[in-house]
Amino acid sequence: MQYPNNIKKNFTKLSISHGNRGMDLENSLNQSNDYYLRTNRALIYKKPTPIGIVDVSYTNHKKIIEKAYFKEQSTLDYNGLYRGKYIEFDAKETLIKTSFPLSNIHEHQTWQIRNVIKHGGIVFLIIRMNDIVYLLTGEDYINYIDTSNRKSISYKYIQEHAHIIKLGYQPPLDYLAVVDEIYFKGE
Amino acid sequence: MQYPNNIKKNFTKLSISHGNRGMDLENSLNQSNDYYLRTNRALIYKKPTPIGIVDVSYTNHKKIIEKAYFKEQSTLDYNGLYRGKYIEFDAKETLIKTSFPLSNIHEHQTWQIRNVIKHGGIVFLIIRMNDIVYLLTGEDYINYIDTSNRKSISYKYIQEHAHIIKLGYQPPLDYLAVVDEIYFKGE
Repeated sequence: MQYPNNIKKNFTKLSISHGNRGMDLENSLNQSNDYYLRTNRALIYKKPTPIGIVDVSYTNHKKIIEKAYFKEQSTLDYNGLYRGKYIEFDAKETLIKTSFPLSNIHEHQTWQIRNVIKHGGIVFLIIRMNDIVYLLTGEDYINYIDTSNRKSISYKYIQEHAHIIKLGYQPPLDYLAVVDEIYFKGE
Repeated sequence: MQYPNNIKKNFTKLSISHGNRGMDLENSLNQSNDYYLRTNRALIYKKPTPIGIVDVSYTNHKKIIEKAYFKEQSTLDYNGLYRGKYIEFDAKETLIKTSFPLSNIHEHQTWQIRNVIKHGGIVFLIIRMNDIVYLLTGEDYINYIDTSNRKSISYKYIQEHAHIIKLGYQPPLDYLAVVDEIYFKGE
């Protein structure tokens, strides 16, 4: 993958300990996307983290970044093309067992989710919680925040509305199997 | 836009001098994408340039990049969602008047163009040459390189097969008008 694994390592506090060789969620998704790419199943990439450059230098005509800081992605982290459709998603995890804090999802991300729905794309969140990885559709997410005043999504709502993604060996997280069921049923 | 304008500035050697207030091709596209976003026409973003991090430090719990280098994008630079369709493209320019050197397009970019076509997405190149901005479809590009052994695309081929993108004020480059004509004709 084009994305340097070491950048976000320390933002990811959890590792998947059961049945997935201790991989964190981001690595599992990157490896799954690599697998989908190699097997011609889909073209899905994690976007590089945008940076703000403060200082550069030149060595042998090569531009080197001497100081920079991380910026926030305007979109969700992953996007691409699957079965002729635009697909975009983000991956989130929490250690809290009873609810998923909405502070994990930035306002511009919620704005982007609404927009992808409006323009006819497939959009969802992959949420890891209680050692289970769920896919929550953008529609179910928007429906929740538009009808609830809570600052978190109850685990009950996730259990009732989200879809479990099975952990495996190749790919580690076969989320496209769930996408097939939700968005391409009967095709 | 999320993309720091200063990063790629010195890779862009040309400016659009006629009818476009001296903007370079990348800025014209970024402003056009901002316009499309604001007017709810499309969701198209330039991907941040991927970097390889060599060294980081922490100040007030904030991670600062102390040394890094630019990496090559695995995909084309721009992608997004338009009228329910996946769209991906790259922007290229040359000062040469008679042909467009294929060395401007990396092998992995050609691979990506073939892949987007295969998976049912819209893919093209935006080429600025002789003070004119053209849209060359991925199909016409692939057809050229598969049937020619030349190291460049003749300007004649571009004039005959590519579509002229009109320069304007808002958006500076209305490439979606051309996309409408090519990919959504009669819809």
